[in-house]
Amino acid sequence: MYRTHTCGELRIENVGDEIVLSGWVQKIRNLGGMTFIDLRDRYGITQLAFDENANPEMTAKAREVGREFVIQVKGKVIERSNKNPNLSTGDIEIACHEINILSKSEIPPFTIEEDTDGGDELRMKYRYLDLRRPQLQRQMALRHKVAQQVRAYLNNQNFFEVETPVLIKSTPEGARDFVVPSRMNPGQFYALPQSPQVFKQLLMVSGYDRYYQIVKCFRDEDLRADRQPEFTQIDCEMAFVEQDDVLSTFEDMTKAIFKNVLNVDMDTPFKRIPFSEAMAKYGNDKPDLRFGMEIHKMNDLVKGHDFVVFDSAEYIGGICAEGLSEYSRKELDKLTKWVQRPQIGAKGLVYVKYNEDGTFKSSVDKFYDADQLKKWADGFNAKPGDLILILAGDEKITLHGLSELRLEMGSRLGLRDKKTFVPLWVVDFPLVEWDEESQRFYAMHHPFTAPKPEDINMLDSDPGKIRANAYDLVINGVEIGGGSVRIFDQDVQAKMFKILGFTKEEAENQFGFLMNAFKYGAPPHAGIAFGFDRLVSIIAGLDSIRDVIAFPKNNSGRDVMIDSPSPVSEDQLDELMLQLKEEEKE
Amino acid sequence: MYRTHTCGELRIENVGDEIVLSGWVQKIRNLGGMTFIDLRDRYGITQLAFDENANPEMTAKAREVGREFVIQVKGKVIERSNKNPNLSTGDIEIACHEINILSKSEIPPFTIEEDTDGGDELRMKYRYLDLRRPQLQRQMALRHKVAQQVRAYLNNQNFFEVETPVLIKSTPEGARDFVVPSRMNPGQFYALPQSPQVFKQLLMVSGYDRYYQIVKCFRDEDLRADRQPEFTQIDCEMAFVEQDDVLSTFEDMTKAIFKNVLNVDMDTPFKRIPFSEAMAKYGNDKPDLRFGMEIHKMNDLVKGHDFVVFDSAEYIGGICAEGLSEYSRKELDKLTKWVQRPQIGAKGLVYVKYNEDGTFKSSVDKFYDADQLKKWADGFNAKPGDLILILAGDEKITLHGLSELRLEMGSRLGLRDKKTFVPLWVVDFPLVEWDEESQRFYAMHHPFTAPKPEDINMLDSDPGKIRANAYDLVINGVEIGGGSVRIFDQDVQAKMFKILGFTKEEAENQFGFLMNAFKYGAPPHAGIAFGFDRLVSIIAGLDSIRDVIAFPKNNSGRDVMIDSPSPVSEDQLDELMLQLKEEEKE
Repeated sequence: MYRTHTCGELRIENVGDEIVLSGWVQKIRNLGGMTFIDLRDRYGITQLAFDENANPEMTAKAREVGREFVIQVKGKVIERSNKNPNLSTGDIEIACHEINILSKSEIPPFTIEEDTDGGDELRMKYRYLDLRRPQLQRQMALRHKVAQQVRAYLNNQNFFEVETPVLIKSTPEGARDFVVPSRMNPGQFYALPQSPQVFKQLLMVSGYDRYYQIVKCFRDEDLRADRQPEFTQIDCEMAFVEQDDVLSTFEDMTKAIFKNVLNVDMDTPFKRIPFSEAMAKYGNDKPDLRFGMEIHKMNDLVKGHDFVVFDSAEYIGGICAEGLSEYSRKELDKLTKWVQRPQIGAKGLVYVKYNEDGTFKSSVDKFYDADQLKKWADGFNAKPGDLILILAGDEKITLHGLSELRLEMGSRLGLRDKKTFVPLWVVDFPLVEWDEESQRFYAMHHPFTAPKPEDINMLDSDPGKIRANAYDLVINGVEIGGGSVRIFDQDVQAKMFKILGFTKEEAENQFGFLMNAFKYGAPPHAGIAFGFDRLVSIIAGLDSIRDVIAFPKNNSGRDVMIDSPSPVSEDQLDELMLQLKEEEKE
Repeated sequence: MYRTHTCGELRIENVGDEIVLSGWVQKIRNLGGMTFIDLRDRYGITQLAFDENANPEMTAKAREVGREFVIQVKGKVIERSNKNPNLSTGDIEIACHEINILSKSEIPPFTIEEDTDGGDELRMKYRYLDLRRPQLQRQMALRHKVAQQVRAYLNNQNFFEVETPVLIKSTPEGARDFVVPSRMNPGQFYALPQSPQVFKQLLMVSGYDRYYQIVKCFRDEDLRADRQPEFTQIDCEMAFVEQDDVLSTFEDMTKAIFKNVLNVDMDTPFKRIPFSEAMAKYGNDKPDLRFGMEIHKMNDLVKGHDFVVFDSAEYIGGICAEGLSEYSRKELDKLTKWVQRPQIGAKGLVYVKYNEDGTFKSSVDKFYDADQLKKWADGFNAKPGDLILILAGDEKITLHGLSELRLEMGSRLGLRDKKTFVPLWVVDFPLVEWDEESQRFYAMHHPFTAPKPEDINMLDSDPGKIRANAYDLVINGVEIGGGSVRIFDQDVQAKMFKILGFTKEEAENQFGFLMNAFKYGAPPHAGIAFGFDRLVSIIAGLDSIRDVIAFPKNNSGRDVMIDSPSPVSEDQLDELMLQLKEEEKE
């Protein structure tokens, strides 16, 4: 038996017990005739004491071990003279009478501590050592806990967990599909799913009523800072429901998770904001509502005063940063440069300081007098001491700039506390988006998303104006989940394909088996998918999903620990009837 | 609102309630002025009644619907005059006053009933309709339930669910790996895991202590009757444990599953049989212990009586089929042909009838007298009325034949009831197997499997004799799970690689990152993996895993519903820097 207890288990009640512990050596201290070792496992740390006088041979052996050695000790639980209140086992220590080295360790390439000296690259390469660090252990434990909470909630709501296939079919539009050559079917390929969308809809047609799965999905695309080629979704679908049923089911799930995992209370129903309102007030379809600082459109207030920047702008709008009227020239210059970066692309930044003494100081004093600036300030409900920041230009670019500026000022004002969670539903997304380049509409969500019944009359006349029964769950400015009510009426679906520019053949080719299934009695249905990695990372208070994934890939999609992807042998390619394409010949 | 209740919910207590139901039309009957519809959903069937006198228009509409239409009805719950005790809702019916057709259905290609008229191929193509059939609904519900039981048990035992990557690295020996070309790393490939073996061992090195995952695994190989290219494992690993800890943890899990899902009691500890005993007594390393009928080796009894078949045989053995002494000449001839099929490959079959009157009749009467046959019978503890069946020849082939014969006779005697479950552990597998063809040893389990400590001294002298700390869980003759204690000592591991004929470079190349990880303090660890599909199918009383998988592939690895795998476009191949190899030119 390697242990009678874990390293996080022993308490003052155990004093006198003969025990066996196993674990990793966290720290060794030699103090005169005594040697102390902190022994670590997943459950905690226990202090081991070796007395040279009592047992010189054993103590000599204890002094030989180094950090990260795996050892087993036998001994008696004794009360500590200097207790450590920061440790759950801090009241006791082990008076050891035997030590066995189970496994030695070389000196690790970085310290296995809360704050390590290892850089990102090194820690990715030695991920198995990084995973020993307490914060990664906490994050993996959290991920485990969230997964169990999700399942407990959905099981309780009569959802069935059904596994959908990983080896599926590549679609012509599946530019981001990973494909998998089949040895048994040479020249043919499976694809890995970007989501189980079609299968979960089929399950509704099959009468499974409520489906969920915590499932890996795959996307072969350039990885932005916080994407992974394989990621995990909480994927759900319900039959015989309307939008409100889905929203209430999943806000209750979210509430339950935050309550049971973080003991954070969320009020339900969550706030619901139409897409159009989110864009107007926050410049963004996933607004961070931990703070207000709403965007105000100022076109009517500011036009016609000979300020050509405003007069010529499609859109003028601003935000009010509370209490920042003392911002210096230098700080404002820096902020101007910040909004002029290509990521934001504003031409410039107009400010209005509402000074503490009630006067105004602005960068457009030449064009607007104090009365006019007062009117602007009133529009923001600004108080003396506030700072109004204004951008102007193309509407889309300017709203994006204001959104970024709002988030930046929110951060500077400390309004984005990671322990505060403000959820909301963004609803009524547009059904389709017009793409100037290809001169066609694209589905904003996917081609099966149902239009709002009250907008359905515009299907022929004005599809760009139709709102969809689609919804996103947003927490603290992060999109956590999204879904929609699905079309289950074959006529509406046919119209939708027409709007999206599919010929009948293309639709048949791409979605034939789903369309066929719909011929045999499709129930009304709706669903949602949560980004599980992102949900866990926001609960963990992290900005990146990488550290809630045990073995993540880097920004080039590489696993540097196992050195993958990697070349395969000619033999293997031969069997798959494949060959590498040679570099283009000049 | 599409429904106030499900179709399995209403009871006599609901009589008088105004309700709304939605579901599929199972059956329509027109009886004079009344029309009855059986409305079906996942939860059950409710009878709807439409009274032509009360509402001719509605009843006309009800008569328009066909099987598998999706309808919604509003009505009042009334007590049925002729109750149906076979239906949970059989005490009531719905007096409808409104019917809405939500979705029409064409006539399904086969009947959606417990016993369908659809053949295998057709049902695979229309899997979404087959999945509506009650038995598939039960099987999916069962699979869901088993998964939740597994998680509940393991969560309770402090196991963490940790997701391991699906896009991993192909190994030189990974002939059965599916590979996945990477667009971002042209010419390079990921591989899909045949199991998360290495990652779970890394998690032990990382200190996660107890890991599990219900996870998809992949194997690109010729599919025998009951294999799938993607299949699901319950994958587990534990640190600081010995073999007995693993066995007791997972027999308790198995016991809990059978109790909570089927209300079947299993006694623990499960029977444990060494591999050598399983082979000797049952000719098989996964014996079906629902019945005895042990194989007896008869070499000593039968040799030296001038019967050349026995005298020249390496192995002579038999079984005793109780009560079958009346088998006719014709039946025995058929059985002889059965053992002579190439799958079994016996040269012939010797029988001894122990007649009810105490006399003997055998096919070798010429060589053995009644006294000798009585001795044989005593060896089997045979009684008058029993039939002894004997095979002789090469030991391996003969034991295999006896194993098959034993199972066949068990079936004929009704000793293999699908509702009886007899679990056992087969332990002490050989560590390595000698392969005549390549003149080298292969790992019986995998190269990380630990030898039994008491056999470790034979590592250099006689590796073929070493027994491993490896174990299989067998239920009713089906291997449900298997695992081993792992090597965590670098010296033993190095020896093991040497025995398996790996050069240092090859070992480094193939298992380098795991070997590296072991340099930094590896705990003793052990694990197991269960075939989840197989576990569910045995609980369901099925012979095939296919019908416990929602969307299975056929024997060619094809999903005939979605028609996958399929060719991909030239553009897609170009982006992956791949081209199809042309057929060999003559």
